[in-house]
Amino acid sequence: MGLDTSLPSIRQVQNLIQQAVTIEIKLLTGDILIGRIIWQDSQCMCLMNENSQQMTVWKQAIAYIKAKE
Amino acid sequence: MGLDTSLPSIRQVQNLIQQAVTIEIKLLTGDILIGRIIWQDSQCMCLMNENSQQMTVWKQAIAYIKAKE
Amino acid sequence: MGLDTSLPSIRQVQNLIQQAVTIEIKLLTGDILIGRIIWQDSQCMCLMNENSQQMTVWKQAIAYIKAKE
Amino acid sequence: MGLDTSLPSIRQVQNLIQQAVTIEIKLLTGDILIGRIIWQDSQCMCLMNENSQQMTVWKQAIAYIKAKE
Amino acid sequence: MGLDTSLPSIRQVQNLIQQAVTIEIKLLTGDILIGRIIWQDSQCMCLMNENSQQMTVWKQAIAYIKAKE
Amino acid sequence: MGLDTSLPSIRQVQNLIQQAVTIEIKLLTGDILIGRIIWQDSQCMCLMNENSQQMTVWKQAIAYIKAKE
Repeated sequence: MGLDTSLPSIRQVQNLIQQAVTIEIKLLTGDILIGRIIWQDSQCMCLMNENSQQMTVWKQAIAYIKAKE
Repeated sequence: MGLDTSLPSIRQVQNLIQQAVTIEIKLLTGDILIGRIIWQDSQCMCLMNENSQQMTVWKQAIAYIKAKE
Repeated sequence: MGLDTSLPSIRQVQNLIQQAVTIEIKLLTGDILIGRIIWQDSQCMCLMNENSQQMTVWKQAIAYIKAKE
Repeated sequence: MGLDTSLPSIRQVQNLIQQAVTIEIKLLTGDILIGRIIWQDSQCMCLMNENSQQMTVWKQAIAYIKAKE
Repeated sequence: MGLDTSLPSIRQVQNLIQQAVTIEIKLLTGDILIGRIIWQDSQCMCLMNENSQQMTVWKQAIAYIKAKE
Repeated sequence: MGLDTSLPSIRQVQNLIQQAVTIEIKLLTGDILIGRIIWQDSQCMCLMNENSQQMTVWKQAIAYIKAKE
């Protein structure tokens, strides 16, 4: 199942990847992850966190994302 | 997967966007987000919050929305 | 995706709408919402609460509903 | 979407309905509901609780069910 | 929707059933259930717990399972 | 439903399996599991934990995974 790039939300994440924006991801667990998105697919996003460590985040667990202030 | 505008709930959010209504979004995390919806697609809504910051909210995490009193 | 009115649960909500029954909705967040259902679609229900305010409730967040005692 | 009666879990609930067994339903909210199942469809179960009140329980919110000891 | 026995996870549960292994099921509620799986279908597993009571567990509520140490 | 190896997230887990990397899995329950992934399918991952015990983790319950520091 490829990425549905007709969706604004998918294109927005593509932009965040290209512009290497530092973001906050709020998870349904209450966790807040901070870092840059490296890639996304239909199920996950890969985040490079502030310790330059890669985390594969399942989209099913995401409440919201926003650019870090 | 485009927006199913035959659904009253989709059309209602379209109206909230056009009328720039300030709303409250209650998330499954217990968070309450306040702001105006800028756009929606089948997976997400983009909210401009009270600090004029954009948040991409995953619809999967929404419990309910209502106009801010 | 229209409403599947072959389902007893969909028809039951249609009856609650027509009879303007006051109900309690228990959400997965633990919240209990009280009011009358105004409309439903495959994704949401619109509840008029006791302050005559409309809330769009995502069905994905519902644990159960019952008539208010 | 009718009931898939090829599934043992669907047939088991049909038996609980026919035998009017009093059961416990543990919800993902942590709630435990006690009563008899009156009907089920692909999305919900209707429970008559111990106060003879009907509750429509969304199957999405169920963790497990067992006969009440 | 029959069981997809091409999946290792489905076959693994079939083995646990045949070998009558005592397992722990961790639920998304935080509950830990202990017992033997008697049957499974695409939506549920039936567990015989340590009090020889049958519990129908919805697979949607499962975090993980492991053999009881 | 076989594994969709066109997805980067699926291939990444395949690499973690082949390289026997020790990882942390954060679950929606808040649990953090530590171990090596032995296999995955479309619904689950099998983790060998630090006590050499196998745990079948449902992908529906995963928030994120990362290599153990």
